Formats: sequence, structure tokens, C-alpha cells
Amino acid sequence: MALVVQKYGGTSVGSIERIHRVADRVAQTQREGHRIVVVLSAMSGETDRLVKMAYEATQAPDEREMDMLLSTGERITIALLAMELRGRGLNARSYTGRQVGIITDNAHTKARIARVSADRIREAIDEGVIPVVAGFQGINERSDVTTLGRGGSDLSAVALAAALKADRCIIFTDVDGVYTADPNIVPAAKRIERISYEEMLEMASLGAKVLQTRSVEFAAKFGVPVEVNSSFKEGKGTLVTKEDADMEAVAVAGVTGDRNQAKITIVGVPDKPGVAAQIFGTVAKSHINVDMIIQNISHTAMTDLSFTVPRADLKKAVPIIEAVAKDIDAKSVEVVESIAKVSLIGVGMRSHSGVAAQMFDVLSHEGINIMMISTSEIKISCVIEEKYLELAMRALHTAFGLDREQ
Amino acid sequence: MALVVQKYGGTSVGSIERIHRVADRVAQTQREGHRIVVVLSAMSGETDRLVKMAYEATQAPDEREMDMLLSTGERITIALLAMELRGRGLNARSYTGRQVGIITDNAHTKARIARVSADRIREAIDEGVIPVVAGFQGINERSDVTTLGRGGSDLSAVALAAALKADRCIIFTDVDGVYTADPNIVPAAKRIERISYEEMLEMASLGAKVLQTRSVEFAAKFGVPVEVNSSFKEGKGTLVTKEDADMEAVAVAGVTGDRNQAKITIVGVPDKPGVAAQIFGTVAKSHINVDMIIQNISHTAMTDLSFTVPRADLKKAVPIIEAVAKDIDAKSVEVVESIAKVSLIGVGMRSHSGVAAQMFDVLSHEGINIMMISTSEIKISCVIEEKYLELAMRALHTAFGLDREQ
Repeated sequence: MALVVQKYGGTSVGSIERIHRVADRVAQTQREGHRIVVVLSAMSGETDRLVKMAYEATQAPDEREMDMLLSTGERITIALLAMELRGRGLNARSYTGRQVGIITDNAHTKARIARVSADRIREAIDEGVIPVVAGFQGINERSDVTTLGRGGSDLSAVALAAALKADRCIIFTDVDGVYTADPNIVPAAKRIERISYEEMLEMASLGAKVLQTRSVEFAAKFGVPVEVNSSFKEGKGTLVTKEDADMEAVAVAGVTGDRNQAKITIVGVPDKPGVAAQIFGTVAKSHINVDMIIQNISHTAMTDLSFTVPRADLKKAVPIIEAVAKDIDAKSVEVVESIAKVSLIGVGMRSHSGVAAQMFDVLSHEGINIMMISTSEIKISCVIEEKYLELAMRALHTAFGLDREQ
Repeated sequence: MALVVQKYGGTSVGSIERIHRVADRVAQTQREGHRIVVVLSAMSGETDRLVKMAYEATQAPDEREMDMLLSTGERITIALLAMELRGRGLNARSYTGRQVGIITDNAHTKARIARVSADRIREAIDEGVIPVVAGFQGINERSDVTTLGRGGSDLSAVALAAALKADRCIIFTDVDGVYTADPNIVPAAKRIERISYEEMLEMASLGAKVLQTRSVEFAAKFGVPVEVNSSFKEGKGTLVTKEDADMEAVAVAGVTGDRNQAKITIVGVPDKPGVAAQIFGTVAKSHINVDMIIQNISHTAMTDLSFTVPRADLKKAVPIIEAVAKDIDAKSVEVVESIAKVSLIGVGMRSHSGVAAQMFDVLSHEGINIMMISTSEIKISCVIEEKYLELAMRALHTAFGLDREQ
């Protein structure tokens, strides 16, 4: 008799009709002989409704109050599902983040989980209760409600699964798993059956927004097997789990594309110690995340420094960079918005040599110029002109054998 | 520097625009040098929206889950008001029923307050915080959310005022006070400046639905001065407080009318011990509240027994009464729906004699037949034909000097 944590996202509980279907699946899982803990998000649209009201009330809503407001969304869905399950004769009970003992730090609207006591929910499970838990929320040491940031319900589910030593944490969402590439861009993309935590983290941070990044980190830390599956159709999903020999046998697990970056180049940077620190120190103080940094080898006393920032931060970044450029006597600042980053991800890269060379070759063969390169143990990324992104992804997907059924 | 608890009902916080006006009033009260605790209801309509969803989810929603669901309404309004006040630079903070220590029994959806610890809110006030508290809710000893039943936010406000030994508890609502009669029926009705707890209880239970009955009982028990006032206009309200000499100087404080009763007569009841107990025991078991009971003096072995029940329960009551009547060998059961109860209320009745006689005289003078009479220390009620209710109320209002300015 396995213990399974099932998490349903906002679209999966977006209406009473959909909550009926969640109830069906919970009932089915129990009939199959499993013990279940359900974690729910707010109905899709509810959070937006509440945020809109907050900004009608005041221009810059206080974050503690925002958490008080937003945490109501999940309380509504857990109550509705619990009462529906009880109406069907199942012994379900709703629990808030506080009631299951999710204790966080004090960073309202983006709190981090400090610990999960889970005593009450453990007792409930032992008594045969199906706990229906509000995701996305906890309390801090002062007993104030906190929320875990966007996608925080995934984290709630994984953290509970870890605390309860659950056999599996299933994240039900509107897709049936993690794909070798975005199927909207690469029609030949295939669902991945098993993927390692590390690969999933790279996929997620590069824009395959299936699982919240922190929830994957948490799952990796505590070794929680996480399955991503569809709440709208039956079938297999993707299992995110510990790396194994099968995964290493494949050089590349997936191809991702990211259009959310822009490239800034500071031209004619005096090549002396401390300059890079000055530039990136200033940028960091403005809370802008720099992703890739390339410094050309300098043959003179001058060098060019290129880096990428989130495109959404570009407007904020440019005047800051221009001021720094002036301070350090650089020549000029150039901005290119229409870039994209294409990446190959796979734990197999550690043992397969020549992946990078083959990637450059494939891009070159398609006539795509590489503007920046960065590599890690399990990832190679190239910045290219945005207009070539789809072509690059499809060509790489084919070249690395991902078009074939796994 | 007085400590004031201000409670705003659902219509007073029914929109963001109205929450702005509540914020105005709170700010104004603080400028006047008072310390304030705010207690809020859910936005009007929100509770209905949630109840509707519950009944869409399942036919008979579980009461614990209903409380989890309904308690979200107040959390939304307290967060919105607190963030608006903070946006204006006031040090406001929202608190749930749990956070202010409202501990109730376990009767979900109609819980009774067992105790109020109020430690956290007391600390907050000492630190200069304006606490904005969710009305209508508490937690039981198991730390599950409970709600206090219809009008429960009034009770939250009064209970907090008692625990904090506040100087006054002001209930802001859509009327500016308690009137000598319903102004829709008696145009000459005047706002009462001061009324005793006992009188208020009689007024409330007889249909002047300004304050929830239990909140008045609670205020009386702990001697909390409660003011009823309008959240939509400036001006004086009605102070509900301890009885004093001024109140006793007036024989009648107000006139009320109640159309929600129906009269049942069991004709030909054998006049022997235990029969009344059998009848009313059966009725009580069906959770039907009997109000007035009249048994005619019997000159034979038979008597007639009349009593009133809430008109809404009549359908349920009649078959039960008919069965009992058959069991005890009574002759027949007669039902009159079109009755009404007109009542005079006033602590002055204790010292003023002849109030009852004058009441009967006034009704008689208007040609109104009295069907039943009941009296208590501070109230006289007559059941009359429903069609005469307005006439009776106006005539009594004039006869007892209530048309004059106080």
C-alpha cells in the first residue's frame, strides 16, 4: 500500500466540474489500495482576481497583507474538494499550510520552507483520513501566513512528500509530462519517461515551465520521486528521479529554447583588474540577474564585455549600464534584443565527448551564427539570432536522435 | 485616549470604494486620538457566492469544510483594509480569528465563543498597531477553523471589546441606530439615544435585526457599551448600555411587530396531567421553537391549547401536531397563518403600572381583537390579526408618547 502525494494545479481545479474530476481520480487512487495526500492550488483566475483587488485598494500592497489575501484561494479549493469527497462517503479533511506544519522563513510572498512538522497529517493518514492540503502557503515563526511564490504549490507537495517519506509525488497539470523539446516548436518532440533531477532543473530554469525550480531542488535534496502527469487524460507521465545508467547512456535528454534574454555589450572596456567587479556589482545591486557573460581575449588595453539579462529588465538595466560604462571610461554600450538561447541538456554529456562540437557543426550547417557560448557539466547553450531559434531547435532535436521513440 | 472597537458589516465593506470610506473613518478616529481595533465582515455577496459553490460541489456540505470555506471571506476584507491603511502610512495589521485568540466550542457553522485570549492583539495595540480583525471566525481546541453563525461578526467585535476592556464597541451598519419602531411601518419612529441591554435583546429577538442577539447577551454579561451607528453618514447612533434611571423614567422604549409566527390550536384536549408535556416534548424534539402558549381555563374535562410557531416551520409542524393530537384523543387541530405579534418593550414597565391595561385599551379603541397575550417584566405582546399590525403599531407608538422627540 503506497503513500502517494497528488498535487493538482489551478487549471485542474478551475471549476466545480473540474473539482468533480479530481474527486474521481482521488477516489480511484484509493480504490487501487493507496493512501493519498492531496495538495491543491487556487482555482485558476482566483489569484489574479485577488491581486487586482489589492491594487485597487492601494498602489503598493504590503506583502504580509498580500499573503493574508492570496492564501484564501487555496482554502476555497481544499474545502470544496474535501466536502465533495465526504459527500461521496470518503473520509477526507481539509488542512491549511499551518495545520500540516509548513513552517517558513519570514520572506512574505516568496517564503522559503524552513521545516515541515507534518505531525497532524501523519496522524490523519494513520486514521484513514485523506488529507486535502492547501498548497502555496505556510506560516512563519510568528504564526503569520506566508506564501511560497509562483508555483509554490509544487513545493508544498514535494515538501510534504519528503516529510511523509511518500513513495511518490505526482504533479497533475495540463501537460502529460516533460518533453524532449517544446512540442509547439518541435513537432517531433517526445515525452521523456524518466529524467534526472539535475536535467529537470536545467530544463525548468531554461523555460520548460512544468515544475517549479525550487520544488525540483527540494525533491533532489530529499530524493522524492516526482511524477509529472496530466489531470485531463489517463496515461503515463514523466518521472523525475535519481540519475541512473539508462539516463547516462543518452548524450542529450532534451533541447530548450529561451527568448527571454537580451544581450548588452560594453565596447572598449579598459582591461584592468576590478572593472568587471565594478560592472556586475552595480548590476547585482539593482536585482537584475545576469545570465551569460563573455569577455573577449584582449590584445590591446581594451576589451569588449558582453552579457545577457532578462529582456523584461532591459529598460531598467540600460541606464545603469550606461552610467557604469561612463564611470569606467568604456567607449559605448550596445544592446541587441532579438537574441535567443538554444540549449542541449543531458547527464550523458559527462561521458559522451564531442557533444559541443556536434552542436556547433549542426548550427553552422544550417547557416546559424553563434554569438555566445556557455557550457556546464550537463548543458551547452548558444546564443543565436532570435529568428533562427525554431530552426536550431528542430535541427538539434533531429541530429541528437530525439525524434525517435524512446 | 479611549480604546474603541469598530465593526463594519458586509455592506460597509461591499466594494473597494466602500473599503476606502472605512479607511477614511479609521484614519479619522486615530487622528482624534483614539486607539482602534477594527473588526470586519466579508464583502456582502461573498458568503452567498461561497455557499453556492459548496452546494454545487455536494448536496450536503460537511460543516467543518463549510467553515474552512466561509472563513475566507473575512480574510479577504481584512487584508484589503490593512493594506490600504498601510498604503496611507498607518500602522495597520490584519489578524485572523485564530491570531487574536478567539477560541470556540466545536459546533461548526454556529460555534459559541469559549474564551478570547487576545494576547497578541493587546501587544499589537501597545506597539501602536491598528489591528484589523476577521469577524465571524475562531478556532476550536483542535485548531480547526469555526464560524459563529449569522451575524457572528457582531459577536467577535463585542467579545474582543470585552477581552480588551475597550471603552466602546461601535457596530457600523446600514442604519444609524435602533428606532422606537420600524420606520417603514411607523413614519413617526425616532432613533433611540440610549437603550438597555435587556430592552435591546427583546427588540432584537422580536425582529429589529440591528444587532445579533448573542452579541447583546455577551455585551450585557461583560458590561460592554455597544453603539450602533451608520457607516454611510456622520452623526449619533444608539448606545446599548446598562439600565439607568433615565431609561426607567419612560414606560415604553419601543414598539415591535412580528409577522413570522403562525398560530396552532389543538381543540378539545383532555384536561389531565402530562398532556402538555407530551405535546410540547414532541414539538421540541423536532427542533421547532414554540413562542407563546395559551391554555384556556377549562370548565369541563376538555380544554383548548393554542400556541405559536415560526411560520417557516409550519409545514413541518402541522403533521407532527396532528399525530400528537390523535394520540391524546384531542378533537381537532386548527391553524391560523395570518397573525402578527405586536409588542411594547421598556424597562420602565417595572415601575410604571397600567401599561398593559393601556395597551389593551388602545387596541380595543382601534377595533383590534386580541387573540393571545403574553407578558414579561419588560415586555407585553399581543397576537392580533395580521392585517391590523401597522395600525396597531402606529396607534401604540402615539399613545405611549414615542412620536415626540426624545
